[in-house]
Amino acid sequence: ADPVAVAEARAHQDRLTKPRGALGALEEVAVRLAGAAAVSPPPLPAPAALAIFAADHGVHAQGVSPWPQEVTLQMVGNFLAGGAVANAFATQVGASVTVVDVGVAADLDPAPGLRISKVAYGTADLSQGPAMTAEQVTAALEAGVVVARELVEQGARCLITGDMGIANTTASAALICAFTGQDAAVATGRGTGVDDETLERKVEVVRRALLANGLTGGPDGAASPGAQTAHAAQMPQMVHIEQKEYKEQSAQIEQTAQAASAMKTLAAVGGLEHAAIAGFILGGAAAGVPVILDGVIAGSAALAAAALAPAVVDHCVAGHRSAEPGHAVALSHLGLRPLVELELRLGEGTGGLLAYPLVCAAVRVMHEVATFDSAGVSDKEA
Amino acid sequence: ADPVAVAEARAHQDRLTKPRGALGALEEVAVRLAGAAAVSPPPLPAPAALAIFAADHGVHAQGVSPWPQEVTLQMVGNFLAGGAVANAFATQVGASVTVVDVGVAADLDPAPGLRISKVAYGTADLSQGPAMTAEQVTAALEAGVVVARELVEQGARCLITGDMGIANTTASAALICAFTGQDAAVATGRGTGVDDETLERKVEVVRRALLANGLTGGPDGAASPGAQTAHAAQMPQMVHIEQKEYKEQSAQIEQTAQAASAMKTLAAVGGLEHAAIAGFILGGAAAGVPVILDGVIAGSAALAAAALAPAVVDHCVAGHRSAEPGHAVALSHLGLRPLVELELRLGEGTGGLLAYPLVCAAVRVMHEVATFDSAGVSDKEA
Repeated sequence: ADPVAVAEARAHQDRLTKPRGALGALEEVAVRLAGAAAVSPPPLPAPAALAIFAADHGVHAQGVSPWPQEVTLQMVGNFLAGGAVANAFATQVGASVTVVDVGVAADLDPAPGLRISKVAYGTADLSQGPAMTAEQVTAALEAGVVVARELVEQGARCLITGDMGIANTTASAALICAFTGQDAAVATGRGTGVDDETLERKVEVVRRALLANGLTGGPDGAASPGAQTAHAAQMPQMVHIEQKEYKEQSAQIEQTAQAASAMKTLAAVGGLEHAAIAGFILGGAAAGVPVILDGVIAGSAALAAAALAPAVVDHCVAGHRSAEPGHAVALSHLGLRPLVELELRLGEGTGGLLAYPLVCAAVRVMHEVATFDSAGVSDKEA
Repeated sequence: ADPVAVAEARAHQDRLTKPRGALGALEEVAVRLAGAAAVSPPPLPAPAALAIFAADHGVHAQGVSPWPQEVTLQMVGNFLAGGAVANAFATQVGASVTVVDVGVAADLDPAPGLRISKVAYGTADLSQGPAMTAEQVTAALEAGVVVARELVEQGARCLITGDMGIANTTASAALICAFTGQDAAVATGRGTGVDDETLERKVEVVRRALLANGLTGGPDGAASPGAQTAHAAQMPQMVHIEQKEYKEQSAQIEQTAQAASAMKTLAAVGGLEHAAIAGFILGGAAAGVPVILDGVIAGSAALAAAALAPAVVDHCVAGHRSAEPGHAVALSHLGLRPLVELELRLGEGTGGLLAYPLVCAAVRVMHEVATFDSAGVSDKEA
């Protein structure tokens, strides 16, 4: 974040005709977006584009969801027909909707609003080994980057993440455990509403996935052996360099190692839509627009994106906090405060869409509200 | 609330292409509005109209606010010039703004968007005795009813409450204590941001106000002597009537007594804008449209409206929960769950405006989302 823009944004907030701090968390949103855009006030984040990344999951075979896998495909049809909750919310807030097939386990017919970037017909079962190959995770990530870039080229000034994938809260829980070190029993939730027995099985599947993939669950994936090895391998070259340079290079290498480890973790227990959303976040940040994160799927994907490039978090706004317990773990790790907390547990981008007018309102204040001086309003007595 | 519409709305929610209950608190909003409108789905609550009721307070003389009293007048000018946060938020969500002078301590020039319904040049000091006369409180209430009716006649399908009045959180705290029985130290907050010393004084002023007005702070103002007397006076006439009739009449008399007591409480420690907002809520409910409540001023006014006519609560949606501690007390007493919780403490209707797109989204789902059957989406396995 740009410290000058942050300072200017804070000072500007304090001159506006309202008691200082009276807009609570919304002032912080405006200040953060000023820092990310490196200008105060930050640009109004409009119009917005929602991208719903759809994919299937091999782990569905473990009985972690009461919904048939075909529902992923059927819901893609529902999005394209305008019949899902995400469509109604997008209409309400004036956001466009793009559906991206990155891994649905069936062939989709071309349709307006659908982008086919299929990497695979679903992932492998993450409880048995890696869900994706290195090539697949890279391709899915790249698909997300491209969608973000193209939506911004087409005029979007705010991106909203969406997802569809039966069983994807299981992959999210595993990612959250791997990136934060949290226990599976804490990070795993009922998703779309599983019963006690299924929840127990789901926790067990997440544990097995972490074990099968050598992810003991250290923070930022650092416990994964890949990270340590990559770092150690670079050490000998650096013996003779200066202390400051050493620190810089060391930090860079640390970051490269962390990024390599994050890709491995994402491939191991993520979903194709998680990888694509991580790319979408990276692409949005690279294009300089805010990215509103939806729920637990986005939160777990954002952990991966943040491990790949920590600065992207400055561009992220946590749209809401879902009912899924792992989501709070992810947001706390990212240092993001959710704007909407209404126990939504739907995905599709619905929580991000609801937050969008709040984000716009926060920024609009910076552009349109008078100052004490300009409005001739007396300030508070010292 | 209409029980048939409520049941129909719940059943309809369960047929939509989403996991049951996945929209959390928003499902409850849609169901409540169906009950209030006696039809499922309830009408889309658009367009919306914000009314900002402005008035001054005699209790300002007690040093309960660091802001000069003239700021009420100056902010009215700011609203009319479009320079306040409420204007920016209203633009964002597409709501109209009407400013209503019910008691500003100065004469206002006529202006577009301003309605002059002045009842007095501010209230008397509530810490010394009643803030308003019986005539004043009735006139202010009536002014609010008229504004609500006219806005609905002009096409509004949702009303949002707003307020402006330096020192009005002191009156709100006193109302909340009187209507809920809560202690002044719990219900009184820092308003626009007073220091520790001023907060202590403010609590003391609220206590003095309750004592000076014979309001010991029983729930629903029932502790006020007026209520007991009115009820007792009617008792002798009812000795010979049948048991069922007795119960009905008794309930009616109880309600009449409660209403009389509520008017006395409102006159004693309320503000002219509190009375007007109570009327605005009654008027909105009478016109059959939802009323989105803003913060602690609206919450305390809603306690009065609910005591006057308990059924109005069905039409109310709690827009947000402000940082003011008494607001949570009021909402809990009303049984309302706030939609936005971002530590706003500004008033003007800002929290209500932010909630408006969420309320629309909740209702829009009922109109536009496909059912499992219509979309050909498989339901969850039993």
